[in-house]
Amino acid sequence: MTDTAHRAPDAAIEAAMRRALAIAVQGPATGANPQVGCVLLDARGEQVAEGWHRGAGTPHAEADALSQVSDASGLTAVVTLEPCNHTGRTGPCAEALIAAGVARVVYAVADPGEVEGGGADRLRAAGVEVSGGVLADEAEEFLHPWLTSVRLGRPFVTVKWGSTLDGRAAAADGTSQWITGAASRQRVHEQRAAHDAIAVGTGTVLADDPSLTARGDGGELLPTQPIPVVFGERPAPADAALRQHPAGLIELGHRDIPRALDELYARGIRRLYVEGGPTLASAFIQAGLVDEYLIYLAPMLLGGPKTAIGDLGIGTIHDARHLSIHRIETLGDDILVVARPAKEQ
Amino acid sequence: MTDTAHRAPDAAIEAAMRRALAIAVQGPATGANPQVGCVLLDARGEQVAEGWHRGAGTPHAEADALSQVSDASGLTAVVTLEPCNHTGRTGPCAEALIAAGVARVVYAVADPGEVEGGGADRLRAAGVEVSGGVLADEAEEFLHPWLTSVRLGRPFVTVKWGSTLDGRAAAADGTSQWITGAASRQRVHEQRAAHDAIAVGTGTVLADDPSLTARGDGGELLPTQPIPVVFGERPAPADAALRQHPAGLIELGHRDIPRALDELYARGIRRLYVEGGPTLASAFIQAGLVDEYLIYLAPMLLGGPKTAIGDLGIGTIHDARHLSIHRIETLGDDILVVARPAKEQ
Ligand SMILES: NC(=O)c1ccc[n+]([C@@H]2O[C@H](COP(=O)([O-])OP(=O)(O)OC[C@H]3O[C@@H](n4cnc5c(N)ncnc54)[C@H](OP(=O)(O)O)[C@@H]3O)[C@@H](O)[C@H]2O)c1
Ligand SMILES: NC(=O)c1ccc[n+]([C@@H]2O[C@H](COP(=O)([O-])OP(=O)(O)OC[C@H]3O[C@@H](n4cnc5c(N)ncnc54)[C@H](OP(=O)(O)O)[C@@H]3O)[C@@H](O)[C@H]2O)c1
Repeated sequence: MTDTAHRAPDAAIEAAMRRALAIAVQGPATGANPQVGCVLLDARGEQVAEGWHRGAGTPHAEADALSQVSDASGLTAVVTLEPCNHTGRTGPCAEALIAAGVARVVYAVADPGEVEGGGADRLRAAGVEVSGGVLADEAEEFLHPWLTSVRLGRPFVTVKWGSTLDGRAAAADGTSQWITGAASRQRVHEQRAAHDAIAVGTGTVLADDPSLTARGDGGELLPTQPIPVVFGERPAPADAALRQHPAGLIELGHRDIPRALDELYARGIRRLYVEGGPTLASAFIQAGLVDEYLIYLAPMLLGGPKTAIGDLGIGTIHDARHLSIHRIETLGDDILVVARPAKEQ
Repeated sequence: MTDTAHRAPDAAIEAAMRRALAIAVQGPATGANPQVGCVLLDARGEQVAEGWHRGAGTPHAEADALSQVSDASGLTAVVTLEPCNHTGRTGPCAEALIAAGVARVVYAVADPGEVEGGGADRLRAAGVEVSGGVLADEAEEFLHPWLTSVRLGRPFVTVKWGSTLDGRAAAADGTSQWITGAASRQRVHEQRAAHDAIAVGTGTVLADDPSLTARGDGGELLPTQPIPVVFGERPAPADAALRQHPAGLIELGHRDIPRALDELYARGIRRLYVEGGPTLASAFIQAGLVDEYLIYLAPMLLGGPKTAIGDLGIGTIHDARHLSIHRIETLGDDILVVARPAKEQ
């Protein structure tokens, strides 16, 4: 520890990171860029500015915060994600922080991107003191979908289904309206809006002609609309409601899930919401390509043949797909189980 | 309001009822008699004695409390259940309270029994001040299985099953050990001990040869053992483990659920725990003869044909069996959903 004159106290750093996480949420959850927040502290640990990223093409959180001060020299920048080292539509944040004369940078999680990463090294090379890992667990959880997507080089895949407590999605005659209640249906619309794209199989398109828009509880379109993606070989009918979707329509024309995920990632899609039906959801599960499960359980029993999940190619109990429960919520009369793949399998 | 000299204050009555409910729990949850607690108060509302019922053939709660005092005249008796008016193995509590000179009786819920009921009227006829309904909701919930059983004139039926989050009880090849975890299995043993009898179908007996004893986590037998009841036409094998059950064995030799419930009620069975398999559990559900559902959901997916619940004879969504969620618990990695039939259907 050479020069400690510019060192904001640890407690102030942690408080600033909490603030940075809190303001990061104001940015969009969708799109190729992560939600990031930045707080600038002076040597006494007092906050002098803050900023967050408002989406692709707008200033990054660091630039947004720096724009609030006339002189940033000697300040500490507290950022939720390691500053980027990449010139995209805006310049690299590492350079901006160096140019502004920031003395120290503290971040929560490292940037996993091949192109974007390396910001910490660039800052160190310029003599800036850099450390990571402050509130790392909170930030890791907050950015979980985006970090997973960038690490795996494919969209983060959320699979959602609704079923009765005995695992059925419809009665024997195929009728299913409404299994889950109004609160669950509203939540599904909010979740749609928090994803870049919605996946459905051709079976659902042909059977239900869904619009797949994200709507508020008055039926109005929400500001963000995920693009619908139809998985399968058959074309959607010429008059399908999906063809009127405000975000457009992607028809894959094939059933190859890994190939589809590559194609969608290349188009900037980081979060994919798989709505079904049973055949497509089961295919994603069987392929081991699900990062989060949203299982809506309605207080109802149906019995019979129409299970929400079909065959998963599992012959014996040792090959069961193990999940870990992340969260359980009650939504009206329904139960929402949020689960993720179990770590050890 | 004539003579109010003996009136313990309302707050003291409510506190005494809470105490009566708390001590009632110490009695056995099984058997033909309910768990009852009684607290005796003096005119200032001070507790002078308490008692509870320890099971068939032992003094009722009122008699137990009265036995603690030399002179009960002018006291208020606070009882969780309306005092009985019936001479069984012990005399009627209404008479005992009158003979002891109790001035006032306050109870929580009325006794629904045809033979036992009428205690309040008998007391009033003898000039005792009587009122009911104090902490009625708590007492109703506490005595729910017993009250339901007496009201319906059949055992209270609990159906339990374990499944994956997608509603499967086994993999395609029939393997199922272990879907639910150790905490759930231990809870099942505790639940067995809280019931008078366990029901299984002949299919489970023939496939698994279960012992159906209630055991502690060291494998030791718990003090209370429910009697196993085999539903179905086929006999259990001569060497079936069930034939060694410490509580004996009831083989019905038929599949008629309403008739079986009559037979079991006549034998004093008030709480029946239906453990499966899928065919028997589904038959109870389809017959509309389930009072409580205990659904253990393991964090696992299996897909395939082996659903925990089979056909329920439900053709269309309007005939779905609606439940109301009573409680959700996490047990180790599993989720336990406790549900009851929905009130309005
Ligand atoms: N409960 C719920 O949450 C929920 C949600 C959505 C839908 N649904 C219901 O589900 C029913 C439709 O069921 P479904 O299972 O037929 O619909 P689906 O999963 O939407 O469509 C199945 C079709 O998708 C295509 N497909 C694309 N990728 C595939 C892959 N990797 N593996 C296999 N097939 C793939 C196949 O058709 P191609 O021949 O065209 O390739 C397949 O026949 C509707 O009645 C709908 O109401 C329920
Ligand atoms: N996941 C769980 O919680 C769980 C629990 C228990 C068992 N199991 C598994 O379930 C499997 C056995 O399944 P299962 O469904 O065949 O067993 P089951 O329900 O125990 O037995 C079915 C048999 O019960 C008789 N039965 C009695 N009353 C009936 C009624 N009202 N309606 C229809 N049948 C009636 C019938 O045989 P008769 O011809 O003799 O009348 C019928 O074939 C075993 O592999 C066992 O491991 C799972």
